[in-house]
Amino acid sequence: MDLGTHPTAATHPGGTILTSPPQDAPVDRATAAARRVVDAMLRTDRGNANLDRVAEELNSIAEHLEQHSPEVAERLIDMWNGEGVTRHDPVTGPENAIAPPLVLEGLADGSVQGVVTLTLPYQGPPGHVHGGVSALLLDHVLGVANAWGGTSGMTAQLSTRYHRPTPLFEPLTISGKFLSKDGRKIHTVGEIKTADGELCVSVEGLFIDKTVPRPR
Amino acid sequence: MDLGTHPTAATHPGGTILTSPPQDAPVDRATAAARRVVDAMLRTDRGNANLDRVAEELNSIAEHLEQHSPEVAERLIDMWNGEGVTRHDPVTGPENAIAPPLVLEGLADGSVQGVVTLTLPYQGPPGHVHGGVSALLLDHVLGVANAWGGTSGMTAQLSTRYHRPTPLFEPLTISGKFLSKDGRKIHTVGEIKTADGELCVSVEGLFIDKTVPRPR
Repeated sequence: MDLGTHPTAATHPGGTILTSPPQDAPVDRATAAARRVVDAMLRTDRGNANLDRVAEELNSIAEHLEQHSPEVAERLIDMWNGEGVTRHDPVTGPENAIAPPLVLEGLADGSVQGVVTLTLPYQGPPGHVHGGVSALLLDHVLGVANAWGGTSGMTAQLSTRYHRPTPLFEPLTISGKFLSKDGRKIHTVGEIKTADGELCVSVEGLFIDKTVPRPR
Repeated sequence: MDLGTHPTAATHPGGTILTSPPQDAPVDRATAAARRVVDAMLRTDRGNANLDRVAEELNSIAEHLEQHSPEVAERLIDMWNGEGVTRHDPVTGPENAIAPPLVLEGLADGSVQGVVTLTLPYQGPPGHVHGGVSALLLDHVLGVANAWGGTSGMTAQLSTRYHRPTPLFEPLTISGKFLSKDGRKIHTVGEIKTADGELCVSVEGLFIDKTVPRPR
């Protein structure tokens, strides 16, 4: 991410959207539909939904998309071209069907926050969010919190604590806050709470101020 | 997971498959096709793949699957019925299009191991695996390592260290090992290495011996 173009708590008002929300564009609509298929596939009747036919149709769509795909190296350059937030990451990306997607806003107190309801694809224990999915979401939220705090870095260490099982099918509030920077070390925290304000997961992150070069 | 039916290093030979590998069944084929769509959607030409038509076709498939879906409460009971490993989790589940899926085997030394190549849906930094995805995979691998070690529990704490960026498009070896159990506290470690044996991510997990009840 290019910090020069990123909104920060110092320059932008509370309520600034920090991720790339789904837009009324063909790729966003197609990805949203793929996300819906991923979810419905886990919910549908295993024996009565004509899944052989569904497999054929999905493979036919995949073939079409693949036939229109450039080489991966070329696609990577295009993907990382330009400024601003990514549209393809597995947490907030409206172009990634794996992403819920989470939309995050920057608050005036320097924290970032988003609300998301997770469904069956994200299940770990029965009816609850997979612990690793919570870590995935929080790692990303901490990265966005760093940007809102005016810095950026690669994750060096992530310490995740699980206080109680995190429920599926309920709005969860996920937040993060940049705390401090000592030399190249960036300290950031985050948490996941239920709508009732119960703490499910907390995280402490250590980031190092460096970036992976963009493909070109 | 029901320990009574799970293979352990004490009872089974090295090389025992501990996850549910994709089978030649309609739901596995349909999910594999959905996974292929998720990947191809990120690779395809944004402007030239007729994505409005793709969105229509995918929404039509999703509608079909949803029309054949039981109530979620009923589906949850079915999903968690029976013994053995899950088929729907977001890491190893052949019925979950979010899962790569990772196949894990138990080794005679008490560790578990799998090899996976990750592609664009799992990207964080340019050309590399999202740090949160590494945490997701390792959290799950540690759970399977616990089972192979003859125990099981809920994640209480997960400390993930990132040693170097983890590459996409290359076979990664992901491993885990149950270390010890003191009372209800279970200690487990894991790591992700490149094909060249370079350490990318390591993790220490603390698990508590308890389970979330199954839906019924």
